[in-house]
Amino acid sequence: MSLPEEVPDRPGSELTITRIYERAKYLFPDQEIVYRTRRGVFRYTYSDFADRVERLASALSSLGVKGLDRVATMDWNTHWHLEEYYAVPMMGAVLHPVNVRLAPQEIVYTMNQAEDSVLIVNADFLQLAEAVVPNVKSIKHVIVVDADSVPSKVGGVQAYHYEDLLKERGGRFEFQALNERRPAFMFYTSGTTGLPKGVYHSHRQVVLHAFSILSSVAGFGAGPKGIQITSRDVSMIVVPMYHVYAWGFPFSSIMSGQKTVLPGRFDSKAYLELIKQEKVTYFAGVPTILYMLLTDPESEKYDLSGVIFINGGSALPEGLALMAERRGMKVFVGYGLTETAPVLTLALPPSRLQDKLSDRELFYIKLRTGYPIFFVDIAVVDQDGKPVPKDGKTLGEVVVRAPWVTYEYYKDPEKTEAAWRGGWFHTGDLAVWYPDGSILIMDREKDVIKSGGEWISSLRLEDAISQHPGILMVTVIGAKHPKWGERPVALVVPRRGWEGKLTTEEINRFLTENFVNRGAIPKWWLPDKVIEVQSLPLTSTGKADKKVLRAQYSDVLAK
Amino acid sequence: MSLPEEVPDRPGSELTITRIYERAKYLFPDQEIVYRTRRGVFRYTYSDFADRVERLASALSSLGVKGLDRVATMDWNTHWHLEEYYAVPMMGAVLHPVNVRLAPQEIVYTMNQAEDSVLIVNADFLQLAEAVVPNVKSIKHVIVVDADSVPSKVGGVQAYHYEDLLKERGGRFEFQALNERRPAFMFYTSGTTGLPKGVYHSHRQVVLHAFSILSSVAGFGAGPKGIQITSRDVSMIVVPMYHVYAWGFPFSSIMSGQKTVLPGRFDSKAYLELIKQEKVTYFAGVPTILYMLLTDPESEKYDLSGVIFINGGSALPEGLALMAERRGMKVFVGYGLTETAPVLTLALPPSRLQDKLSDRELFYIKLRTGYPIFFVDIAVVDQDGKPVPKDGKTLGEVVVRAPWVTYEYYKDPEKTEAAWRGGWFHTGDLAVWYPDGSILIMDREKDVIKSGGEWISSLRLEDAISQHPGILMVTVIGAKHPKWGERPVALVVPRRGWEGKLTTEEINRFLTENFVNRGAIPKWWLPDKVIEVQSLPLTSTGKADKKVLRAQYSDVLAK
Repeated sequence: MSLPEEVPDRPGSELTITRIYERAKYLFPDQEIVYRTRRGVFRYTYSDFADRVERLASALSSLGVKGLDRVATMDWNTHWHLEEYYAVPMMGAVLHPVNVRLAPQEIVYTMNQAEDSVLIVNADFLQLAEAVVPNVKSIKHVIVVDADSVPSKVGGVQAYHYEDLLKERGGRFEFQALNERRPAFMFYTSGTTGLPKGVYHSHRQVVLHAFSILSSVAGFGAGPKGIQITSRDVSMIVVPMYHVYAWGFPFSSIMSGQKTVLPGRFDSKAYLELIKQEKVTYFAGVPTILYMLLTDPESEKYDLSGVIFINGGSALPEGLALMAERRGMKVFVGYGLTETAPVLTLALPPSRLQDKLSDRELFYIKLRTGYPIFFVDIAVVDQDGKPVPKDGKTLGEVVVRAPWVTYEYYKDPEKTEAAWRGGWFHTGDLAVWYPDGSILIMDREKDVIKSGGEWISSLRLEDAISQHPGILMVTVIGAKHPKWGERPVALVVPRRGWEGKLTTEEINRFLTENFVNRGAIPKWWLPDKVIEVQSLPLTSTGKADKKVLRAQYSDVLAK
Repeated sequence: MSLPEEVPDRPGSELTITRIYERAKYLFPDQEIVYRTRRGVFRYTYSDFADRVERLASALSSLGVKGLDRVATMDWNTHWHLEEYYAVPMMGAVLHPVNVRLAPQEIVYTMNQAEDSVLIVNADFLQLAEAVVPNVKSIKHVIVVDADSVPSKVGGVQAYHYEDLLKERGGRFEFQALNERRPAFMFYTSGTTGLPKGVYHSHRQVVLHAFSILSSVAGFGAGPKGIQITSRDVSMIVVPMYHVYAWGFPFSSIMSGQKTVLPGRFDSKAYLELIKQEKVTYFAGVPTILYMLLTDPESEKYDLSGVIFINGGSALPEGLALMAERRGMKVFVGYGLTETAPVLTLALPPSRLQDKLSDRELFYIKLRTGYPIFFVDIAVVDQDGKPVPKDGKTLGEVVVRAPWVTYEYYKDPEKTEAAWRGGWFHTGDLAVWYPDGSILIMDREKDVIKSGGEWISSLRLEDAISQHPGILMVTVIGAKHPKWGERPVALVVPRRGWEGKLTTEEINRFLTENFVNRGAIPKWWLPDKVIEVQSLPLTSTGKADKKVLRAQYSDVLAK
């Protein structure tokens, strides 16, 4: 009898979603969850929520959901979605929130690959479900939420009303202890290069991720210049729950006993009203959401001072950040990928650093991609996998390790192997590394322009060009070049009155005066060509679709 | 190819102490660690610390430390001890901090059972080491810290000076990724009933424990009436590091990048001076420590306002808590056992509750045993293992589950089985359970008095009797009784001037007037006998030694 090489588990060691649920029931039974449906704004307690979660599990179980069965959802951020987020993984099954912004044929592809057996759909997406379900043979049941009445069949499959199911089949359900490594969720990337790729995460991964965000923001952001989120905060879950765990908030909010607001279908007026009525103190989202809330015609009537906004999905433009700060909001950036569950970094500097920075320096640091949160190892590496200098200048690829990075791309060993080469997960994002350990993403690896063996950041160029007064939208791609391999080409949408004036000469004059001459951009980065267009094609996540643009414009310099 | 039942790990998934170390190096290289030795107060940075940890690992490795070898320590809270806390487990070996307060023969027993191969000893404990080492055959090397010179042998074993070792053998050392379930530490209980019992914890257990404390205090205690500890705080590690992980602070402080103070050998004046000079914002300890700091003749010269004290080890007496609050300190209680690594609860109520409580109610709640921290499941059960009502009255045993509860008592399957019966770890502590989920420990199971099938809390009686003006110290034990099985007997040490006056009648008159008549204590709890003594025997942790007293007085009612 001696020390074991591995200490075995005793009951209660497992890091599962059930632990978050049980804790919430135990400590915060009377805390509120506020939700907005087509009928209005309602509220119930954590205790009511816990009860409905149990009844949902019972109902799903009676429909035959068992083992690692996949349950798909098509919904906004509703209390129904939250109930599914807990009940399905806690039963031992796997929740697959479908990204309703993908093209229907992409959705069919993902649901077939995931072999979803049940679909829970908001009445708003019934038409989509009718189109998709006939093409997904594994679907056996459809459950509809937020509907006055439910057709007997959807897409040829037996349909139920969620509330009826809970009433009729929602008995008691005893959640069993699960292995923490059991898969809990599946998500698909938005697939800007080819078909969407599936990833899945275990209970352990989901729980550690939520725990890390929670404690990183609570502890890390402390201090007079810091930003803190604690159990007293009121959380509004704005990031769509069909995007990777809504960035973890459905777990971190409930875990810490926060009043939690599920605002339903996006509507800037309704969201502003909820912030006011429910005294929301923080939310996260893509820059577009912030922009829409700040530019709503009635926005100025709402007091947003003190409200925290965590930006993700793409870089937070300085102008937008300033607009938010002028309204008294506190903004900072977070970063992650669907593959990484998602959060890897938050742009909250350590307290010691905060004290040494001026307000303006701090403002810019909070716009960076950020510092790794607990348990995230991060490095920026060159093409040989060697760390680049922490000089804030040299571009390299961001590689990461964390307990919540996806084990694989589902059914795609080739892509898995490529992403995990050398024991690090390759994000495909190009960044510079600062001496303080923070990073700033400059481009996607696939979007970077490889000119004469050197890299030109399309994002950095876009950011610079967007500051020209005549620019409404801009995107920069690499076009084939006989000598340099690739050279930058800018596609610009003019503001009214600027049509015909955004020539290559004009843009390069602007860039030279404002950036090249100040050393902010190298001269050789100046685009070879600027092309005026009326609009830009967008991806399902609202970014310019460079895949389409490259197909269209890649030969423009070769001619 | 389908979803696996268990998601496998990728590199960087492991929850090991190395992750805390690497993070600290990465994000907080210039943060300070302040330490006090016999020569004075010094400071170095996290970066210096990390460097010395690496060199210590290299030196130990060159002495032959490998595999799961046990390295014992006998030291105060010094930077050397902190370096050992990291280097040894990160090498893959196991640190065994020896409780220097145990009797030498008990220490010999524990070191033989642990089969320690190296002993690192502070010069202050050389005499103890000389006595112990000859009786522990497994010891191959002795390393001495805080010494001007080191004898060539200690207890017949080759001895080295720590600093010389680091200079001569302290090269670079590459810490390998470890299995998170690898044992990292061994500790022995103080063994108030029989020989000390050994427990060990894995990296995973140590890390999750530290993480849970950190985020519980950061998030849970938020708010105007709350108490928060974040990365800006300055930690002084007062709980001896030879007691179970100094309650986790050597990890939670470094993890969050706090300035960390290691105050060395206890000395109330020196500790007060450190609090002042280093602007310490929080520390933890047993009530005795707080008492000594507050009653030091020069204590009043020091401004303690705002300083947080986390009480553990035994209940925080109300009078002492009031004394601390009058000095502007913020106090609350934590609870745990050596077996549970140790923290299970903290007496910080959820924010929502705080708002509903008066300052006075909140004060008393912070003196309770507290609320379970993240990932701790707690229940108070009767003798059949059924939960008692959450009525704040019914006494039951505290049973727990948490990822960091010990898997077993080392080499003692019988005690292990008894403690883990029914899948819950039995703490042996008796408590009442409140409607809000908090608990209040009333007694040790072995100290409770079983009278006619009912339980009488010896602690509750002691607390009441201690409020009699003539009482300096009191302890209550169960003495054998022909009719009731056991009945309470109080052993009291009188204050000066009260000698001979603390009769059974006087004490029971006092209890009746002040407690029984107010319904605070049942009449049948009144002690059958009060015995005046000149002093009470104490255990190694400074509590009254009830084992000795029971041996001496158990027949006092039978006669």
